[in-house]
Amino acid sequence: MRISKLFGKTLREEPAEAELVSHRLMLRAGLIYQVSSGVYSYMPLAWRSLRKIEQIIREEMDAAGGQELRMPVLQPRELWVESGRTEAFDLFTLQDRRDRSLVLAPTHEEVLTTMVKANVHSYRDLPLILYQIQTKFRDEPRPRGGLLRVREFDMKDAYSFDIDEEGLDLSYQAMVQAYKNIYARCGLAAIIVEADSGPIGGKDSQEFILLAESGEDTIFLCESCGYAANAERAVFAKPEIDRTAPEPLEEVHTPGVKTIEDLAGFLDVPTGRTLKAVFYMAGDEVIVVTIRGDLDVNEIKLRNALGGVGLRLASPKEVSEAGLVAGSASAVGLSGIRVVADDSVKLGANFVAGANRQDYHLRNVNFPRDFKADVITDIALAREGYLCARCHDPMVTRRGIEVGHVFKVGTRYSEAFGAAFPDESDVQRPIIMGCYGIGVGRLLAAAIEQHHDDNGMVLPASIAPYDVWLLALNVENPDVAQAADTLYEALRDDGVQVLYDDRKESAGVKFNDADLLGLPVRLVVSPRNLRQQAVEVKLRSEDQAATVALDQAVGRVRELLTP
Amino acid sequence: MRISKLFGKTLREEPAEAELVSHRLMLRAGLIYQVSSGVYSYMPLAWRSLRKIEQIIREEMDAAGGQELRMPVLQPRELWVESGRTEAFDLFTLQDRRDRSLVLAPTHEEVLTTMVKANVHSYRDLPLILYQIQTKFRDEPRPRGGLLRVREFDMKDAYSFDIDEEGLDLSYQAMVQAYKNIYARCGLAAIIVEADSGPIGGKDSQEFILLAESGEDTIFLCESCGYAANAERAVFAKPEIDRTAPEPLEEVHTPGVKTIEDLAGFLDVPTGRTLKAVFYMAGDEVIVVTIRGDLDVNEIKLRNALGGVGLRLASPKEVSEAGLVAGSASAVGLSGIRVVADDSVKLGANFVAGANRQDYHLRNVNFPRDFKADVITDIALAREGYLCARCHDPMVTRRGIEVGHVFKVGTRYSEAFGAAFPDESDVQRPIIMGCYGIGVGRLLAAAIEQHHDDNGMVLPASIAPYDVWLLALNVENPDVAQAADTLYEALRDDGVQVLYDDRKESAGVKFNDADLLGLPVRLVVSPRNLRQQAVEVKLRSEDQAATVALDQAVGRVRELLTP
Repeated sequence: MRISKLFGKTLREEPAEAELVSHRLMLRAGLIYQVSSGVYSYMPLAWRSLRKIEQIIREEMDAAGGQELRMPVLQPRELWVESGRTEAFDLFTLQDRRDRSLVLAPTHEEVLTTMVKANVHSYRDLPLILYQIQTKFRDEPRPRGGLLRVREFDMKDAYSFDIDEEGLDLSYQAMVQAYKNIYARCGLAAIIVEADSGPIGGKDSQEFILLAESGEDTIFLCESCGYAANAERAVFAKPEIDRTAPEPLEEVHTPGVKTIEDLAGFLDVPTGRTLKAVFYMAGDEVIVVTIRGDLDVNEIKLRNALGGVGLRLASPKEVSEAGLVAGSASAVGLSGIRVVADDSVKLGANFVAGANRQDYHLRNVNFPRDFKADVITDIALAREGYLCARCHDPMVTRRGIEVGHVFKVGTRYSEAFGAAFPDESDVQRPIIMGCYGIGVGRLLAAAIEQHHDDNGMVLPASIAPYDVWLLALNVENPDVAQAADTLYEALRDDGVQVLYDDRKESAGVKFNDADLLGLPVRLVVSPRNLRQQAVEVKLRSEDQAATVALDQAVGRVRELLTP
Repeated sequence: MRISKLFGKTLREEPAEAELVSHRLMLRAGLIYQVSSGVYSYMPLAWRSLRKIEQIIREEMDAAGGQELRMPVLQPRELWVESGRTEAFDLFTLQDRRDRSLVLAPTHEEVLTTMVKANVHSYRDLPLILYQIQTKFRDEPRPRGGLLRVREFDMKDAYSFDIDEEGLDLSYQAMVQAYKNIYARCGLAAIIVEADSGPIGGKDSQEFILLAESGEDTIFLCESCGYAANAERAVFAKPEIDRTAPEPLEEVHTPGVKTIEDLAGFLDVPTGRTLKAVFYMAGDEVIVVTIRGDLDVNEIKLRNALGGVGLRLASPKEVSEAGLVAGSASAVGLSGIRVVADDSVKLGANFVAGANRQDYHLRNVNFPRDFKADVITDIALAREGYLCARCHDPMVTRRGIEVGHVFKVGTRYSEAFGAAFPDESDVQRPIIMGCYGIGVGRLLAAAIEQHHDDNGMVLPASIAPYDVWLLALNVENPDVAQAADTLYEALRDDGVQVLYDDRKESAGVKFNDADLLGLPVRLVVSPRNLRQQAVEVKLRSEDQAATVALDQAVGRVRELLTP
């Protein structure tokens, strides 16, 4: 492609609105054009990269036994009522001319489960891995700059259907391996971490993360044993606080003491010897959550402990209407209110907790002697330096970008839609499902976040829009123009994808644009080099340029591009 | 692909809801799955065909100098307000979480014109041909069965941008040639016809039509000179009616005479010697349309004559409120009402027309002596047997399906959005635009309408989902299974796309399914043929099967598939 003919202009100035590197570089290089908040057009260069990513994904999905199909964007809202997901995913909804409610699909479990139900009549029709690469929609409350969090995006979504858990494990492992292959072929170092299932549901889920400073996700890593999880899911070893023999309850006057830190200071005990009480609304119901005072509540874990309900902190009014004394509350003596306890309440004895009476606390509170919990499980938030649950070494945190998510979903959708099959004994059993997603545009943006320098992008060769930036210096010089034209054709004849900078622009503009887009190889044809019948060759990822004889340039490029 | 693993089942029964052949065959062969009215999932087999069509389109667009990009589905409704098209295309509209109005794009002139405006700064940046292959949306009032008229569809839409009309002509011709190549490579005989521009606008437009009995469009063809146009656009030679010298106006009493036929009979004149008056509402305005009595009004031509306004027939109440006498109306003596006349009023003399007085008509009405017209142009509807405007031979009509539409749009959008460029004299001039569309799913459905027989589809090889249906008869026989497996691998190693019917089904089911999907070549491995170390080979498009030695089967298939 000759740049003089290419649709899209590089910007000389930094775009003011862009905070993230990938957003800034994509705008500057003319890769994207914003149509609305979180809605972009992909210019020809970006589209080439995205299609290369798509093709890598497609090949790996096919190699893993996936069958590609295509489901529609428009879906009857009733399907989402049936699955109970009308409040999930920030659904875009609309009415058609006959006032039927439609949604713009953010994912396709509902539709595909009904299709599988219609087409699977026997255990012999399973397993299946079905996938599509398609545009999805979410009415994101806060679209982020560039392609990292948008309202319209292209995604590869795959779904597996198996007769039993063992089958699901095999399908899941095949998808995990395909994902590893995809990131490797894209030249990206992704790590796999334990994750929460969120609105997709199911028991197990993992995310693929590209580590990048600008990432929105916090990842907990144990460098000793390799444990990795995102902040929503991360577990850790909770230290036991000195377990002494239980002593009798004792009320103490704690005037004006409201916070755990005040309380620990006032009574001169470590925060780990106190119990914190936090109040949430689960729908219309007030929930009291109790956790050891040195820990905080992980709301995602709490939501899962309550069966996935919508949760928010209770307001002061809701707290007092429930008869709870903020600042002096605990689970001790409560009745008629559901209590969820973190399992840390078992890791210690003789805690200080609220007396449920203004300005009073209790000493020597012990579980389960003094209070009960309706649910007791891990609902604690991990923090940097907490100990790995597996090997007890301290964990570190890293920032990262989620570029893939895989779920063992189970029977949630097959039960909702009655997608069952007769097994070998002719007993109807629900199909076991897995879901597997990769955002295509997000992968490109994340790749730029991970692969850039001060001058621009340094994209991996497999996903760069072209292989070579062929830069002709001083194109008014007919020798340069002819040599560059000849080289351009020779490279193309050899199957090399060349972006040919044939513009009448200054050397500065051309070199800057070459660095900005960051194609793997830069070739420079200049009057000076031509006198030696040579051309300059430089890898974007390296500082040093070299010269090579004109008639060996194609071969040299070929070598450089061969991994 | 082994059919035992394929997602999708053929139906044994005729689907009751399907009227059209393509709809019926696609349902029976398990190619599509209906999710909502006019909204389908494409099963793996259909998706393979659609991707082949897409790839053919992409290659021809690229060869014609097109640059592929991708624009979003979601667009701010304000863009459509600016272009004046909020009422066109049966737009789906929705509100986002911040109550901004969005539309689901049915076409992309608005967005692309703003992108071109931002990226074209000089005449040197033009011409451009930009295209995408993308999902579009229209809230069709009457979705038709199958993929012919749907609410969500994949389309290739291309747009050209030029500095002048000569440039537009070149871009347009390049696109027309690319379209011809596309249909030819898809194995489809498309004809090109003059068409109306509709809501896209512009002065010239042509459609590509696949002739098929089930087509919704009527095409006028002149078999002598090759003129071809759709019914909306077709012109014809209007015969002159005996032109006698004008005689004086004369009122005649015509009690109870309301229709042209009554009038001609009552006064014993041919209908061509009368003038018909028809009343339309253009917005709030009553329009009187007059045309020679042997002709009818083409409402599309009429709308265009009025500048593209919305039109409908006036109600009896609106007619009488305007002071018009239905059954006895004409343009003679009218004032304050706009008159549009077909140019046939000039092709004759001494017409009979309404006297604008109940039960009276006038003899010897002559244009322009007795009435004026605000607009006089061709607004007449063509009919079978009318004479070709070019060569005066009678035209025939055919039914067809529109599979492509190209438009010389001009400056409508560049003026609306201020997309201009400085020419060589630094004068700002609006960019000249063309638009070019092909519906991908519609092309597949139309291909099936054109290529099928009583037993199923007979798809052209280039767009069939696979090349070969390899049918193993009696797969429980280990010799058959082994020979068929070996042949399957050998064909795949040779790059042949094989659908391998390895199911434990009866011969009847397998042969029926092979005919139903209609892949170009059928191979049958059977115990009987195996005894001769042979395999049966048959083209779907021919009746006779032949046998070929097993070790020559791959070569024979290769020969048959080479065009």
